[in-house]
Amino acid sequence: MDLMSIENPAFLKGLSNEELQSLSEDIRHFLINKLSLTGGHIGPNLGVVELTIALHKCFDSPKDKMLWDVGHQSYVHKILTGRAKDFDTLRQYKGMSGFPKMNESEHDVWETGHSSTSLSAAMGMAVARDLKKEDSYIIPIIGDGALTGGMALEALNHIGDEKKNMIVILNDNEMSIAPNVGALHQVLGRLRTAGKYQWVKDELEMLLKKIPAVGGKMAATAERIKDSLKYLLVSGVFFEELGFTYLGPVDGHDYDDLFEQLNYAKKTSGPVLLHVITKKGKGFSPAEKDKIGTWHGTGPYKIETGDFVKPTITAPAWSKLVSDTVLKLARTDERIVAVTPAMPVGSKLESFAKEFPNRMLDVGIAEQHAVTLAAGLATQKMKPFLAIYSTFLQRAYDQMLHDVCRQNLNVFIGIDRAGLVGADGETHQGIYDIAFLRHMPNLVLMMPKDENEGQHMVNTAIKYDDGPIAMRFPRGNGIGVELDSALKTIPIGTWEVLKEGSDAAILTFGTTIEMAMEAANQLEAQGIHVKVVNARFIKPIDEAMLTDLLKKQIPILTLEEAILQGGFGSYCLEYAHDHGFGANVIDRMGIPDEFIEHGDVNSLLEEINLTKEEVVNRLLAIARKKQKRA
Amino acid sequence: MDLMSIENPAFLKGLSNEELQSLSEDIRHFLINKLSLTGGHIGPNLGVVELTIALHKCFDSPKDKMLWDVGHQSYVHKILTGRAKDFDTLRQYKGMSGFPKMNESEHDVWETGHSSTSLSAAMGMAVARDLKKEDSYIIPIIGDGALTGGMALEALNHIGDEKKNMIVILNDNEMSIAPNVGALHQVLGRLRTAGKYQWVKDELEMLLKKIPAVGGKMAATAERIKDSLKYLLVSGVFFEELGFTYLGPVDGHDYDDLFEQLNYAKKTSGPVLLHVITKKGKGFSPAEKDKIGTWHGTGPYKIETGDFVKPTITAPAWSKLVSDTVLKLARTDERIVAVTPAMPVGSKLESFAKEFPNRMLDVGIAEQHAVTLAAGLATQKMKPFLAIYSTFLQRAYDQMLHDVCRQNLNVFIGIDRAGLVGADGETHQGIYDIAFLRHMPNLVLMMPKDENEGQHMVNTAIKYDDGPIAMRFPRGNGIGVELDSALKTIPIGTWEVLKEGSDAAILTFGTTIEMAMEAANQLEAQGIHVKVVNARFIKPIDEAMLTDLLKKQIPILTLEEAILQGGFGSYCLEYAHDHGFGANVIDRMGIPDEFIEHGDVNSLLEEINLTKEEVVNRLLAIARKKQKRA
Repeated sequence: MDLMSIENPAFLKGLSNEELQSLSEDIRHFLINKLSLTGGHIGPNLGVVELTIALHKCFDSPKDKMLWDVGHQSYVHKILTGRAKDFDTLRQYKGMSGFPKMNESEHDVWETGHSSTSLSAAMGMAVARDLKKEDSYIIPIIGDGALTGGMALEALNHIGDEKKNMIVILNDNEMSIAPNVGALHQVLGRLRTAGKYQWVKDELEMLLKKIPAVGGKMAATAERIKDSLKYLLVSGVFFEELGFTYLGPVDGHDYDDLFEQLNYAKKTSGPVLLHVITKKGKGFSPAEKDKIGTWHGTGPYKIETGDFVKPTITAPAWSKLVSDTVLKLARTDERIVAVTPAMPVGSKLESFAKEFPNRMLDVGIAEQHAVTLAAGLATQKMKPFLAIYSTFLQRAYDQMLHDVCRQNLNVFIGIDRAGLVGADGETHQGIYDIAFLRHMPNLVLMMPKDENEGQHMVNTAIKYDDGPIAMRFPRGNGIGVELDSALKTIPIGTWEVLKEGSDAAILTFGTTIEMAMEAANQLEAQGIHVKVVNARFIKPIDEAMLTDLLKKQIPILTLEEAILQGGFGSYCLEYAHDHGFGANVIDRMGIPDEFIEHGDVNSLLEEINLTKEEVVNRLLAIARKKQKRA
Repeated sequence: MDLMSIENPAFLKGLSNEELQSLSEDIRHFLINKLSLTGGHIGPNLGVVELTIALHKCFDSPKDKMLWDVGHQSYVHKILTGRAKDFDTLRQYKGMSGFPKMNESEHDVWETGHSSTSLSAAMGMAVARDLKKEDSYIIPIIGDGALTGGMALEALNHIGDEKKNMIVILNDNEMSIAPNVGALHQVLGRLRTAGKYQWVKDELEMLLKKIPAVGGKMAATAERIKDSLKYLLVSGVFFEELGFTYLGPVDGHDYDDLFEQLNYAKKTSGPVLLHVITKKGKGFSPAEKDKIGTWHGTGPYKIETGDFVKPTITAPAWSKLVSDTVLKLARTDERIVAVTPAMPVGSKLESFAKEFPNRMLDVGIAEQHAVTLAAGLATQKMKPFLAIYSTFLQRAYDQMLHDVCRQNLNVFIGIDRAGLVGADGETHQGIYDIAFLRHMPNLVLMMPKDENEGQHMVNTAIKYDDGPIAMRFPRGNGIGVELDSALKTIPIGTWEVLKEGSDAAILTFGTTIEMAMEAANQLEAQGIHVKVVNARFIKPIDEAMLTDLLKKQIPILTLEEAILQGGFGSYCLEYAHDHGFGANVIDRMGIPDEFIEHGDVNSLLEEINLTKEEVVNRLLAIARKKQKRA
């Protein structure tokens, strides 16, 4: 059918299973084609085509509320709720988001991005529904990976106890982003195969048949035992123990099965967990065959071959540079242990895992545990390297403060995807880490100007043993500089002058150095001499260099691809006022106090005026201001 | 025995159970006496006397590592490791901490304060031990309440999967601080009574006996079934499912039982969970009888009567003022739902719970879930009141940013125990919330000057419907002002002038207003006229008033009982520089970039120079500075 004509999911009510199957094919075809041009989360969405259609046929959205955990699997939902026409702009600037968004559709009742939030939100909605004496189904859809996140487990514990009506759809594809880990994953594996329990049940039934007919009480007892055993052995005891009615496992690509179980779930009171087995990438052979997560989220690709359309970048990916440098050091430093919360592929730790399987811990989606596990390692004189994305480190704020920094433990935190991340949008921007880490005592925070400095900083972090040290680095690739063959250490708290000048100074680090240099060079041509400083240590700052600038009353512009409130520029203001240089001209550029949506990074930077042109304007203004004051 | 003579736990090895019992009595006597003078966590410690002694007898600390989750139950451990003599200074300034501290003893291998961290740290230690091919037992001791914290569940999931040797002691006293909630609590309840499973097992055994002797294969099958059933029915299937060997439940006050199970645990490879049942407050009748948590942590008390020695304060406790005002409003506003993460008593929500049991949710120790649950409620046009301590809100940083602020949901967060908390010390100081909340878009953050303004602010927060709004308030009691009978709303983002003056201005809020006024009055007598501003809105600030001060070039001192880095004062600096007033004289006072240990708040304030005298000095300095510049 013409997917563009879909306005809302009501049309599904009248369709037969055969028609639904045909629709499924159309949607798969549509997704494979559209995403081959835009990129996006192809694997997760191909896996939930039938499940999403079945949900929208069985329930009445938006009265019934579907909450898409993580949310990158909501594309089919978007098609069924009238947004097929927007797929040409998927994840693009001012285009359709890759995640549920309330301002896109009344059918998006909960926005996601980070994992494991849907159960808590669903509980809130269920409480509200009951207090308001309304009647609706509340249906969080959560993957087996997201289920191991601490807050999802907190919510399971609460929901199971409160017994609110709710239908939790466990979308079990055996991998979230990378193959899943953890005991709960094993529990699901056992439920999928049911082997271990099945033989007990089978043999018991055989045994029970052999019991002499004693009639009456005995027969009733035998029945009760059978019931209890069934309950215990084959019905998802883990979830039943937590207070859920466990249904499934059901084939998530079979409409008959799905409708039977969904209708049963609708009739069941209290919290239900429906275990649905799906195949990630279903219907697109390259994605179906993926075992490690390559097809979880992709850029554009060629449909026929399954080859990715990749720009020819020769500079190393930042994640790879960092992980490979850690790996190189690990060969001679036995203290090094790598820890990742479910991102072995994204953090490019595959080589490390291969070479040092015992020194690599993928803990699953469990950022809090990852950070404190690293702290535990550090108490034993190990040197943990925690590879974590900036946005996900937000989940472990307290663990960073209370466990790592307070105990001043030697943990090296590699903060990946720092700065604007682009297409994933506002839930994933890595722009808060400076503001939330800067006030943590004992922490060293740095960012390299290029991949060569990056490798030296990794070495610096590994050699440093005075407490926690973090290096933030951006999404994407380096800038293509040559790598020194020998690793150096960089003195903690030192900045580097990249260009001399005395009319004004820019203090900046990482990705914004390029625009600072360009702006400075442009002004140089106009006879205005701007000093450019690689403020590679965000904490502690280079007090000597900053003091020197302040003493000389050189007007300062700070520039950061991070939230301005309480950020690096703010640190410089604090320092200036604390040391009697408050009267100096200091201006700050960075990310304003608002959420930044998805889009290519350049468009986003332009939107928030974080551009070379604005740097030039600001530099001119502060240079003039100084003249005026002088 | 003379507890003061204990230097380390080695002496325990030679003691008989009778002697241990006598020692237990001595320790109970000691604790009841000492804590009657100093206050402290009497209930939890009386509950673990035998357990702690048994652990130190069975294991060799510090080679074997005991990790006390939360840590307030480590007093007996402190006595056994040579610190009985320090109990006179317990939780006092420069005295012994109420929590494990590495700098107190080599036996304190992991510092705690916040709950649920011990399992992650233990996992880190276990990985390190195995990599270093060392041989030691790792023994986290965690309460049934702390077990429901998300990060503990994340850790359980990982530990059960990795199969490292570890002995988790589950100290199950059926309550952590308040009576525990959640499905896992029900699981433990079933294990404690074992009733449900016991009858299945009993009846099955009876049944099996009736099976005709078929010999050979059949008998083997029956045995296998019995084994499997035993495994499934009586051995803690929840934990077994997660990969642990479950042992217990065992009576935590019976040495025979404890030693038998501990020795069995020592011989068991892989992760073991030993379920120990203890009685909180054991041996001290008032504490034993406590059902709601009154005797969890206390001030001084009278041993004979169990009465608390309370200073006669007539001003209402802040927690009570806030909760009672919410309760009052809830009578006419059906949208209001109260949410607490395990602090119904601390947050004084008992009256609310009694009057509106359906509108009060105690989610257990689960801060992340609590915040996002509140967000879920808000999506349904409810008005959640989240009562949470400042220090525990740290656990939900990402939920505040990603779920509440990003979706701009109408959640009212009551941030209790904001500022220095005193005796609990560095893990509990509520001094980071401004720095970690200020950069969250959409959030309104305020702090009242007294309890009357406090009640109006609660009303303001409930009436506000433009997004999230938080009110921070200190530990302890109000200052004794009269309460208006009618509730008002306070215009968002407005400050209040408490005293006029034009030589300098202090911008401050909450607890530090008193010292600001005193300092200003003192200077007034010297002819220096200081304006004192109640900067009750920390975000957004009163831009009009601040601009006016800046335009008039009145030197400004900001004063906050919170971390300086990125705090309120920093906000004022940012504002001044962003609006062309950077040259103004602005000085900041607050908490420096270091962890602040335990002690009475006044001593701590003095230590960090947050005193009236320093305010006077700073005001004089900035007033002079301005004169100099002018």
